[in-house]
This record gives sequence, structure tokens and C-alpha cells, in this order.
Amino acid sequence: MEPVLFYGVPHGCSFGSIVALEWLGQPYRLARIDMLAKSKSTLYGRVNSMHQTPTLLLEDGRSLSESFAILHNIAARDFGRQLGFAQGTGAHDRLNQMLAYLHTSFHSAFSPAWTAYKLKEGDPAIKMLRDLAREKAASGYAYLQSHLQGRDWLAGDNRTIADAYMTGIARWGEDLGLFDLKTEYPSLHTYLQKLEADKAVIFAHAIEDETPAVTSGQFLGHITLDEAGARLAA
Amino acid sequence: MEPVLFYGVPHGCSFGSIVALEWLGQPYRLARIDMLAKSKSTLYGRVNSMHQTPTLLLEDGRSLSESFAILHNIAARDFGRQLGFAQGTGAHDRLNQMLAYLHTSFHSAFSPAWTAYKLKEGDPAIKMLRDLAREKAASGYAYLQSHLQGRDWLAGDNRTIADAYMTGIARWGEDLGLFDLKTEYPSLHTYLQKLEADKAVIFAHAIEDETPAVTSGQFLGHITLDEAGARLAA
Repeated sequence: MEPVLFYGVPHGCSFGSIVALEWLGQPYRLARIDMLAKSKSTLYGRVNSMHQTPTLLLEDGRSLSESFAILHNIAARDFGRQLGFAQGTGAHDRLNQMLAYLHTSFHSAFSPAWTAYKLKEGDPAIKMLRDLAREKAASGYAYLQSHLQGRDWLAGDNRTIADAYMTGIARWGEDLGLFDLKTEYPSLHTYLQKLEADKAVIFAHAIEDETPAVTSGQFLGHITLDEAGARLAA
Repeated sequence: MEPVLFYGVPHGCSFGSIVALEWLGQPYRLARIDMLAKSKSTLYGRVNSMHQTPTLLLEDGRSLSESFAILHNIAARDFGRQLGFAQGTGAHDRLNQMLAYLHTSFHSAFSPAWTAYKLKEGDPAIKMLRDLAREKAASGYAYLQSHLQGRDWLAGDNRTIADAYMTGIARWGEDLGLFDLKTEYPSLHTYLQKLEADKAVIFAHAIEDETPAVTSGQFLGHITLDEAGARLAA
């Protein structure tokens, strides 16, 4: 049976894996996990022992977690799509470097602000945490903007899983009210707008927002957590 | 010419890349970067534009950053050593999952405590940041300890680049005075002690501490940043 991606809402980094699955063009299904509620369920704990999203339920009933591993799994299904590159090549090294940067320094730059988001209004730590996040994320946006000078895509001559992942996390600066990317990082904003116009990105937004979603890949529909559970390896 | 690893002191996560190079058994050199001083140099900025370590200077004069990318580059040099696995296999997926977990959730769990470390004594934020780090890292240690139940190594039947990376970051809980691993996570501690007895890990400690280091791989000696700079691609 086709793989199933468990994606988290609201606004999880799973978004990038949905985009990559659309770009791959092979059959897949989705299962929606409300990170504020359902992720705590015992059944989801069998899918992902840390109750995190995304998780990719593979054809053999095993589940694969961590965006980095899932995106590489998707890319390796068809190198003809050039979403990733063969091991041992310079292109693969460069892609790994960019993916690692996005997953570590850039992703974690926002963490203090997500911590602040969960604190009670008026908590004196909120400002310190948000300032810290803004400082770290600002250097991330600046680096990514300068990296994109003279380049169309983050890694290689075509869109790759790095660009897919970027779509899911670059938005956090504005989600958290920390940045206005259009004024502060105009050329990075132009690159992000190009991605926003991509059919796969439009599809992923519609999936998140539960509005009508038109697949340009081979999305076969949602399944419930219970249905997915029946496919889990023992 | 052989690759050169720029490693950071004190106690950087570069440590794992030194261990992996020893396990690989192919010729390499090291260049030492004092993260509190030399990393700010203009020349090192040409090696790594974000002034971070580790960086691997490749045979063609290009530099590769991010531990994740460097470790995969090292593993792919000789799959006979089983430090990593071929793309498209389940073993490769599992290794990526573990490496991603270590690089993201586990590595970043310590970040608030490193932030606190740089604050002035008496700053009221210190306790909050250290408590936050302890809470996040505790769930990391607990997960890793439970993952190792019935396993000798983190990913696969042999030591891999995941175990190499683990040696460099698992120590931070004690470095920061947040944990006593022997009492709190005894079976994880036993696994870490097994690694501490490994010749490559003993070597990496000696390199960091500038005590006599005996290679069990093909370490050819240090070169200076200036010498390495001459090998950089334009």
C-alpha cells in the first residue's frame, strides 16, 4: 500500500514533507494530527513514541520520523525528479549541508519564541525569549538571503527537498510577529513568493486550512489515525 | 591531498567528526579553532561563513559544514566500515532518523543552558533557562536510554556515525552541571562508558585536551589555519 504522512497542525514543519510528496508525483495518503490534542493519544504514541509530527508510515508498516529522514526517503524514491542527489556526490553534500542548517540553526532559532508563546501573558520572561529568537532568526534570514544571491534554489539548479522544507519553517518569523520579511529581507521574500505560487505549496496550505485542495501529484486522500493504526507493524 | 577537519574547542560537537575520521581509517589532518577567539577571524570566515565548527576541507578545496553533512561524507567514503549505509535502504532511513533526532531535539535541548552560561552571574533569567534545558534534555536522555534497550548501538548492529556524534554531545548534561548520568540514566551511562573506552574516543579527548594523542586511524597531524587557507578554493 502507498505511504501515509502524518502531518501536524497548526503550522507544523510537516508542511515541507507534504510539498515534497506532491513534487515526487507518486501515490500517497495523509493523516491529520492536531498537535494540541490528538498527538497525545496512545495510538499516535505507537506511530511516533515522542508524539511528534511528521511521521511517514512506510509500505512495510514501519514508521519513519524526523523531517530530515522523511525528506531523504521521499527524494530517494525517484532521483529522476531531482528532489535529492546520489550519495557520494558533491551535490548530495551541499544538499545535506543546507538541510542540516535549516533543521538545526534555523529551526531552533525560533524555539525561544515558541516557548514564550506558551507562557502566561505578562510573564517577564516573554520579552527576553522573543528578543533572543529575533536575534537568532535574523542571522538565519540574513544568511539564507545572502546564500540565495545568484541562485534560484537553496541547493542545486532545481527545487529540492531543501526548498520544500524551507516553505514550512520560513513563515514562522511572521507567524510569531517577529519579522516583516517583505521589508526586512526583500530578495528572500521574492524567493519565498515564488514558492508560494507553486501548485504543491498551494495544495499544502489548503490541506492545512481544510479548504478544497487540488493535487498536482498523486494524493489519494486522508485516512484516519485508527485506519492508519491498523497498518502499523507489530 | 587529504581532507582537513576544522574542529572547535572547548567541547564542541566537532568531537564526533574526529571520532568518525578515526573509525574510517583513511588519511586526514586536523586544524584547531578556538571558538572563543580564532573563529572570529576573517580567514576562518572564508572557511565557514557562519564561523562555526566543524568544517571539513575537502580534497577539491571546497569546504563542507554542518556535522550532519560531514558525518555522512565520512561514512560514504567506505561503506565497508559500516559507519553509514546505502541510500534507499531501511538502515539508511533509521540512521538518518537517529542522526536528525540528535542534531535537532537533543542538541537544541541544551541551548537555553548555553545561553544562560553566557549571562552575567545573578541574572534572573539564568534559573529559568537552566530549568528549561534540564526539562528538555531529560526527555532526550530518557528517550535515548529507552531506545538502547536491547540494542548495542544507536542505529544498526555496529557503531555508526550516530554513535560518533553522540559522544560529542551527550557529555553536555554533565558539562553544564545539569545531570549526574550515572545515577539518573544508568544504562545510558554504561553505553557511554563503552564508547569512552574506544581508542578513537580516547584519541579525540587527547586532541581536545592537547595531551599526547595516539591515532588508531590515519591522523597525519595538525595544520594551521593559515596553511589550510592556502588550500581553499577561490
